[in-house]
Amino acid sequence: MKGARRHDHSARGFAVVDGCLAIGGVPLPRLAARVGGTPFYAYDRHLITERVDLLRHHLPPTVHLSYAVKANPMPAVVQHLAGLVDGFDLASAGEMKTALDSGMPADRISFAGPGKTEQELSQAIAAGVALNLESAAELETAARIGDSLGLRPRAAVRVNPDFELKGSGMRMGGGAKPFGVDVERVPDLLRRMAELDVAFEGFHIFGGSQNLLAEQVREAQRHTVDLAFRLAERAPGPVRGLNIGGGFGIPYFPGDAPLDLAAVGEGLAGLAAEVSARLPEARLIVELGRYVVGEAGVYVCRVIDRKVSRNQTFLVTDGGLHHHLAVSGNFGQVVRRNYPVAIGNRMAAPADDTVSVVGCLCTPLDILADAVTVPRAEPGDLIVVFQSGAYGLTASPTAFLGHKAPDEVLV
Amino acid sequence: MKGARRHDHSARGFAVVDGCLAIGGVPLPRLAARVGGTPFYAYDRHLITERVDLLRHHLPPTVHLSYAVKANPMPAVVQHLAGLVDGFDLASAGEMKTALDSGMPADRISFAGPGKTEQELSQAIAAGVALNLESAAELETAARIGDSLGLRPRAAVRVNPDFELKGSGMRMGGGAKPFGVDVERVPDLLRRMAELDVAFEGFHIFGGSQNLLAEQVREAQRHTVDLAFRLAERAPGPVRGLNIGGGFGIPYFPGDAPLDLAAVGEGLAGLAAEVSARLPEARLIVELGRYVVGEAGVYVCRVIDRKVSRNQTFLVTDGGLHHHLAVSGNFGQVVRRNYPVAIGNRMAAPADDTVSVVGCLCTPLDILADAVTVPRAEPGDLIVVFQSGAYGLTASPTAFLGHKAPDEVLV
Repeated sequence: MKGARRHDHSARGFAVVDGCLAIGGVPLPRLAARVGGTPFYAYDRHLITERVDLLRHHLPPTVHLSYAVKANPMPAVVQHLAGLVDGFDLASAGEMKTALDSGMPADRISFAGPGKTEQELSQAIAAGVALNLESAAELETAARIGDSLGLRPRAAVRVNPDFELKGSGMRMGGGAKPFGVDVERVPDLLRRMAELDVAFEGFHIFGGSQNLLAEQVREAQRHTVDLAFRLAERAPGPVRGLNIGGGFGIPYFPGDAPLDLAAVGEGLAGLAAEVSARLPEARLIVELGRYVVGEAGVYVCRVIDRKVSRNQTFLVTDGGLHHHLAVSGNFGQVVRRNYPVAIGNRMAAPADDTVSVVGCLCTPLDILADAVTVPRAEPGDLIVVFQSGAYGLTASPTAFLGHKAPDEVLV
Repeated sequence: MKGARRHDHSARGFAVVDGCLAIGGVPLPRLAARVGGTPFYAYDRHLITERVDLLRHHLPPTVHLSYAVKANPMPAVVQHLAGLVDGFDLASAGEMKTALDSGMPADRISFAGPGKTEQELSQAIAAGVALNLESAAELETAARIGDSLGLRPRAAVRVNPDFELKGSGMRMGGGAKPFGVDVERVPDLLRRMAELDVAFEGFHIFGGSQNLLAEQVREAQRHTVDLAFRLAERAPGPVRGLNIGGGFGIPYFPGDAPLDLAAVGEGLAGLAAEVSARLPEARLIVELGRYVVGEAGVYVCRVIDRKVSRNQTFLVTDGGLHHHLAVSGNFGQVVRRNYPVAIGNRMAAPADDTVSVVGCLCTPLDILADAVTVPRAEPGDLIVVFQSGAYGLTASPTAFLGHKAPDEVLV
């Protein structure tokens, strides 16, 4: 590849080649040609590897990294991560198929989520995947299925703690919740596990997600490990796995500072030593999804029309919220804020044009970027939405209005 | 079918047979068995027909009814409506395939939406479907494609009016918009159409959607028709079609009163007479999606677990926001409100249990009904979400967390 390469802040860690953003070293216009058109998602293999390396560098060596497949279940991404991380966490039988196909051993895989069906429980037990039990009823069902299959289910208890992870984008624990077993009910469940033919694996305790403040992540981890120590005293056997969740956030919006991973790692080093001492058979598992893949992916669409309506300029694209619901501000966000965007084939041009970038859907919700200042773009140019490697395509209503689903590539 | 049939308010127009809600006359447990499992969407063929009959009864006979396929593009629904309505409006080439497959003649079909690709324009022109032009650039592209295909594109102008439809759930016109051509720019566009080899069809003027107030719908229709009369003076030929949109709302939430269709019809009768007099070659088209199918459909899922967490009861189901994003409050809603729900196999039981109904996804967003009072439900029971016939399945992120997509049935 000829031409000047440079890294700049606006490229968010990707290379820029001849004024074009490059994913996995391939400039976007060429990548679009290779994919066969726009829109598409592109994930950078090297950036994913770098992110895992960064985690290995900062987190204590005894910590096991588990990838939450739901963040990005593209089979090629899962396959790539199978060679990098220590385990996978699943949310469905669909994800289980991808995880097992990757060659990840079943004893490194766990399956969480409320409302697992009998079919899903049966598939997981047959595969040898560990269940993160969400309720007392689920334990009974799992034991019954295990009996009928002649297999001993492996099961951890997902605990709904009595504290919340402060500052999280999404709170998953504390208070009344459909997830996990309330901590005060866990001893009864553990007693019942000892009566049934179910192998006790350990605990899954997860307080929240998308937290950018190391101090809060550390505090939640401290509380989580303390809670696990208390619960371990009631356990029917040694704790083999202690999944303390993740919750590591990535910066999406102006003013978001990246998580101080070194500080998180320092806190975790102390906890890891305590866990080794007090629960010697336990793997200490940190489960991450968004943090591993979120910044390694972009969504790419093409400008179809440049339209001025009453002094406002719209770049109308062939993309939209049917491909990327989160960027439109319609997936759990209370206030819509712009993700970082760029004109992918004009990275070197001055940003002097204020435009709104919209999708091709007949709804005012279909906004990709509102009043952003970017280099002047014309029909044919490529719009890039950064921070799109997690909860992008699969978290979007791809059938909405009957357009084709976008491709995904790992480069 | 044996047993007592009764109609009650809580059944929202569906029959109740032996304490079970019936869709198309089939009680839900039997329907679930026929579909092969839960979750699924079910649409009632007879209720759709009744709704079109109601429209025919109240709207003046010269009004043409067009169905906006995007509201529910299930092929069987579109096929059923092909025999009932006068035309279809499309938002994509995908919808065009379904519409043409139904046998609806191409000259009764129009295709709207910003950012139509060259491929889509080419398909529509080849099919003989009318384009609702969204910009001056789109006109040029359509003319060029028409030349290369040796076909004369049929085109109406989608107008962005200089007023808004008050009280709409979603405003589609007025101000700076990516949709349509600003009214002040329309005369230039009409002049250009006359120069090009493009057949002028008429106007598409659409102010908003989901309005429950007849007075406001009438006012918007009055303004819309007046605007069309002004624009028609500049048109390169007779107006053959005048699509004044729809915007008829359906009641979703407690306190929502149904639209007074008779009042809308009265207003429209006067307008229709004026249109006949002043634009004698024009079909006056009312385009409706949600109003035709929204109340004829339900979403059905099954209780997997009944869970009490800290004094709150959760019915955990095999459904969720991946199937029905709107009910979770995450599709354009600012404040989440409960859709009407029922326990579909316990319609006759007293409602004395206050529960939250949640889906099977690991996210606190996955709420189907929050703190509703319903008959006591146990695992195996069927949860029904009413008002789910429009913008349900296709407006949802079905691949989220890797669960199977639900089936759809027209009964």
